[in-house]
Amino acid sequence: MRPSGRQLNEMRAVSIETNVTKHAEGSCLIKMGDTHVLCTATLEERVPPFIKGSGLGWVTAEYGMLPRSTSSRMRREAAAGKQGGRTVEIQRLIGRALRAGVDRVALGERQITIDCDVIQADGGTRCASITGGWVALRLALNKLLKTGAITSDPLISPVAAISCGIYAGQPVLDLDYPEDSEAGVDGNFIMLGNKTLIEVQMSAEGSVFSRDQMNELMDLAEKGVEELAAAQLEATA
Amino acid sequence: MRPSGRQLNEMRAVSIETNVTKHAEGSCLIKMGDTHVLCTATLEERVPPFIKGSGLGWVTAEYGMLPRSTSSRMRREAAAGKQGGRTVEIQRLIGRALRAGVDRVALGERQITIDCDVIQADGGTRCASITGGWVALRLALNKLLKTGAITSDPLISPVAAISCGIYAGQPVLDLDYPEDSEAGVDGNFIMLGNKTLIEVQMSAEGSVFSRDQMNELMDLAEKGVEELAAAQLEATA
Amino acid sequence: MRPSGRQLNEMRAVSIETNVTKHAEGSCLIKMGDTHVLCTATLEERVPPFIKGSGLGWVTAEYGMLPRSTSSRMRREAAAGKQGGRTVEIQRLIGRALRAGVDRVALGERQITIDCDVIQADGGTRCASITGGWVALRLALNKLLKTGAITSDPLISPVAAISCGIYAGQPVLDLDYPEDSEAGVDGNFIMLGNKTLIEVQMSAEGSVFSRDQMNELMDLAEKGVEELAAAQLEATA
Amino acid sequence: MRPSGRQLNEMRAVSIETNVTKHAEGSCLIKMGDTHVLCTATLEERVPPFIKGSGLGWVTAEYGMLPRSTSSRMRREAAAGKQGGRTVEIQRLIGRALRAGVDRVALGERQITIDCDVIQADGGTRCASITGGWVALRLALNKLLKTGAITSDPLISPVAAISCGIYAGQPVLDLDYPEDSEAGVDGNFIMLGNKTLIEVQMSAEGSVFSRDQMNELMDLAEKGVEELAAAQLEATA
Amino acid sequence: MRPSGRQLNEMRAVSIETNVTKHAEGSCLIKMGDTHVLCTATLEERVPPFIKGSGLGWVTAEYGMLPRSTSSRMRREAAAGKQGGRTVEIQRLIGRALRAGVDRVALGERQITIDCDVIQADGGTRCASITGGWVALRLALNKLLKTGAITSDPLISPVAAISCGIYAGQPVLDLDYPEDSEAGVDGNFIMLGNKTLIEVQMSAEGSVFSRDQMNELMDLAEKGVEELAAAQLEATA
Amino acid sequence: MRPSGRQLNEMRAVSIETNVTKHAEGSCLIKMGDTHVLCTATLEERVPPFIKGSGLGWVTAEYGMLPRSTSSRMRREAAAGKQGGRTVEIQRLIGRALRAGVDRVALGERQITIDCDVIQADGGTRCASITGGWVALRLALNKLLKTGAITSDPLISPVAAISCGIYAGQPVLDLDYPEDSEAGVDGNFIMLGNKTLIEVQMSAEGSVFSRDQMNELMDLAEKGVEELAAAQLEATA
Repeated sequence: MRPSGRQLNEMRAVSIETNVTKHAEGSCLIKMGDTHVLCTATLEERVPPFIKGSGLGWVTAEYGMLPRSTSSRMRREAAAGKQGGRTVEIQRLIGRALRAGVDRVALGERQITIDCDVIQADGGTRCASITGGWVALRLALNKLLKTGAITSDPLISPVAAISCGIYAGQPVLDLDYPEDSEAGVDGNFIMLGNKTLIEVQMSAEGSVFSRDQMNELMDLAEKGVEELAAAQLEATA
Repeated sequence: MRPSGRQLNEMRAVSIETNVTKHAEGSCLIKMGDTHVLCTATLEERVPPFIKGSGLGWVTAEYGMLPRSTSSRMRREAAAGKQGGRTVEIQRLIGRALRAGVDRVALGERQITIDCDVIQADGGTRCASITGGWVALRLALNKLLKTGAITSDPLISPVAAISCGIYAGQPVLDLDYPEDSEAGVDGNFIMLGNKTLIEVQMSAEGSVFSRDQMNELMDLAEKGVEELAAAQLEATA
Repeated sequence: MRPSGRQLNEMRAVSIETNVTKHAEGSCLIKMGDTHVLCTATLEERVPPFIKGSGLGWVTAEYGMLPRSTSSRMRREAAAGKQGGRTVEIQRLIGRALRAGVDRVALGERQITIDCDVIQADGGTRCASITGGWVALRLALNKLLKTGAITSDPLISPVAAISCGIYAGQPVLDLDYPEDSEAGVDGNFIMLGNKTLIEVQMSAEGSVFSRDQMNELMDLAEKGVEELAAAQLEATA
Repeated sequence: MRPSGRQLNEMRAVSIETNVTKHAEGSCLIKMGDTHVLCTATLEERVPPFIKGSGLGWVTAEYGMLPRSTSSRMRREAAAGKQGGRTVEIQRLIGRALRAGVDRVALGERQITIDCDVIQADGGTRCASITGGWVALRLALNKLLKTGAITSDPLISPVAAISCGIYAGQPVLDLDYPEDSEAGVDGNFIMLGNKTLIEVQMSAEGSVFSRDQMNELMDLAEKGVEELAAAQLEATA
Repeated sequence: MRPSGRQLNEMRAVSIETNVTKHAEGSCLIKMGDTHVLCTATLEERVPPFIKGSGLGWVTAEYGMLPRSTSSRMRREAAAGKQGGRTVEIQRLIGRALRAGVDRVALGERQITIDCDVIQADGGTRCASITGGWVALRLALNKLLKTGAITSDPLISPVAAISCGIYAGQPVLDLDYPEDSEAGVDGNFIMLGNKTLIEVQMSAEGSVFSRDQMNELMDLAEKGVEELAAAQLEATA
Repeated sequence: MRPSGRQLNEMRAVSIETNVTKHAEGSCLIKMGDTHVLCTATLEERVPPFIKGSGLGWVTAEYGMLPRSTSSRMRREAAAGKQGGRTVEIQRLIGRALRAGVDRVALGERQITIDCDVIQADGGTRCASITGGWVALRLALNKLLKTGAITSDPLISPVAAISCGIYAGQPVLDLDYPEDSEAGVDGNFIMLGNKTLIEVQMSAEGSVFSRDQMNELMDLAEKGVEELAAAQLEATA
């Protein structure tokens, strides 16, 4: 039995509210149950030095948690004087995942920065950041398409991410914090809307896992991504 | 004429939504027009080393801006590796202001940290942080009073802050960003609900000012604080 | 009764020795009683990037305390790896205050950096830094006027700063350290020589204050600035 | 055709030289072709604060590359003033992977730190670090078993890691640098000697991948781990 | 011919003014020509952790240059966020040199920190710091002897330092900045008053040197130290 | 009697293995007994800004110790977030020493960076770094001479370094760690192959020393450098 009473293959309620801030070129507030992440897209007409002159665009991401987004207050990273290892790992993942769904030639030499700031955390913040980040990206690109700054859509398909894990010996979809902190194995699957894989990260946290279990988790993830991609398309329709 | 069409002595619309996050002991989302700040209060049963054993409590604050809370994206301070001078100055101000309205004996040896995170900025974020921060503090203390952890209310009166300045040669109340960036003189007044002064900060930014102008600004500020204190009391009633 | 035996409206003895170091374009050692600050002005024929090409000059300041300028040794900020919040706040204040008294068009595209290093501290170091900093600035500009590098004097009037506060229930002028550490309210007034205001900073430190008290403090400050401006003019005559 | 002329499922030559430094409790120099990593194990009779008193042991890891281990010189991280995101990610992975193969109760309250320093890099340094790190760990634990400090072996099975990827459209085992820099998809599989999974990390780098391809890569990885585990056991026999 | 017109074996005028700051337990302003260094001694009744309980005392030093102590302004190290390599090297040298002249048993478990802050620089600041630092140390210990806190004098003899070098092909004593910046070889000799050696540092800066030249430089240094020790004893008599 | 049983004037066994890494332009692994240092030379066709356009080349060095190169594990400097004072001092010394043996005009506008990484430490790592660093430099320059990129050899003579000290009252050559940690006086001599001096660093560590002792140490050092220079020439023949 899951603490929330959900079925093993049941995701939390997803809601995606778009255009939540007046300054960003694209933005949304994504909620996966009690996990709330504010995602904004910032468009700049310049690219990092390493691709200058290549004709290619760039998508990057930054991630942060508000100090009291968690049950007990976390130290503010700006005050600590650096981003922790977990933060760096997550923001590299978000950027890499979103880039996998972007035609960088069509984007042209411009950069889009996706900021994912966790307002309230209850497990699965990196997955919510990717899923919501794609929505912010979609909205920013819609503006570019509308003004004619770009003529071909750089987005191939939604990029969505979902966590899975083995909780109390059972494979479960979309772990919330109580599950996440107890799971023996957990990880994240990132896919395009058609379930082609972008990234798989599965880790033992106390107990190892078999190849059969890996396959069961991937089945769950495919179901989750299908639902998320539908929500992304609906929010940006 | 003010860019927003407001009267010289007219504040922006204030809204204070309370209990906006499930983890914090107290929280609110304060909106002063398009300036939106999320304020949370974290209660800890420990105090900083320098007052250990004194029987006194402590209230401190931290401040941050989401990277895209502003018109063009700011560098994330956690990524830059330190809090900028402006941030440090503001969070010291918030803490000092709120402490002035707290009976630290009644609070007892515990610490309350007020986090003020700017979701969207349009001028006056430090004042909104103080005003909203007091609401979060009030709510956290209500819990302590309710459980009987403290028996005497440590809060003397609301603490509210408002900006004033000289814009286009006229004294105006509650500057928004277009005014703030053009004002020749601006500053902040922090008061208790009864208009007793806690802090006055008035700066020339291009033009100096006379003692008469200082007095006109203080009149405006008193009007503003009166309205803010009413909103604070209503939100926490 | 003040610990020093001074009258409520009596400033400490002021002395300003000029040209105390052979390298700087302008310099002085200002003493306000036992508070001694070495102020130097460095002239550079370049401006910060944000005003390049604007035709405007820039004045900025840095502040530091020698580790044993204080009663017990402070940690050296260079060793600690960063300037503390108080230092940053003070040096931003010094720069802002001095710029308010400079005609940046007349200065032309050059930068003057005022370094204020506290040799011995006994309260009021930021005010002494501003007052002495103006003297160093004046001397550096005199050289530019003399060589004909600039033809119109960029300095409108002396800029002087003085602290006031409420000590033992009484408004007093120019707090020394024993007063400063006990004062319920204190702050700084920065003015041009004609007593026009540049900056007002008044803070409750334990007790709040009324508008009447604010006015009494401002009266004291005007008296102090008058005396300081005379000393500045005499030193640079 | 692979640049090295290897078969698709052919690993590079593996060599593991043990006891290569006189100070460490365990050490080896692992070579996977031209990738050379020096792994040392340091034993300390203390644990990190978060598990003090729990009776459990801890295994952690640090990773570094010598500046000229690579084709063009990398900046020394100590000089840069921080470990880069990639370094932090890798050392967290090494520690997590090795802990998954350790019975922390049997280890008792002591900490083993595995340092993995890349002497020469040609792709696959994180996998070589894990595989070699386990050997250093094994040797350090052998000493503890020999002295009787611990009586039950904390190591369940070898922990080995191997990279796989899709290069020129083909699934290949153990990518070297020329392959790694061109691969459309690559990742790492970490397993126990019996091929139970500890961690799976598969990333698209330019092209996405199907579930069938994922399965082919996992088949290759199982072959690789089998060979590595044999080499680990032989080196520590 | 030396730029200053001095003889090859002629030191600059030395002056040592004592008790120049009211807070420090010992202090002096040492001038070697145009090189001026403020030296203070801070006494603390605690020692660094690595000698706690040993019964031994500790003497350490910190060094800094005011930003405009030099001909062109140096970046403030506190603003740069770290002490440069040269600074660290110098302060380690000062501490090591002074400790060599201290009987740490007689000192007992207390620490004395010598701060050497360069007010004006014209070559030889590290030597002036050591020579002046010893005076500050002497004065602080005199207080301890006077109060009876220590009964046996921990200072064996003055510690003095002087630079020598090969300038325009000639061995010269006490290089000033114009000489120092042109010297092919230079270095520092640190000795007790009786000319026993504490530290020798001699470096080629453009031209190498023979053992005969080394001996000539040492002769010069002995002369310099003799004069400095006399000045130190006179200042502290 | 020396702990190792060596004669007072007997150096440890020296071995220099060249071309130990495939990426660097020059490299060697130097062993002085149990002290092992990996030295690599990196050639870049650019120079630091301060000599751009001067026609002169530059040689610089960086130094590091692997965390477990020592008897108890040292903290990794990259993790600590900065290079310690000792590291900075040593790498400045290595660079300065090697530059003294280079004709920077013949080198032309290019930079060579010598990385010295201590694999195993047993005293004398800075001297081994200089001696081995020269070998790496020699090998890199041989390549430039071979390709005709430079036509005149920038290396005048080997640069070698050796430690000496007073151990148990006796002058000894080439201190190993047990001697180094007990020596009352120790230091380093850096010379060209013909024994002309480049740098002398001699420090009291507990006991001071006479000029006669200084001379005895220099005699020992000359013997050591003679042997080292022979080994350097043999290794690079």
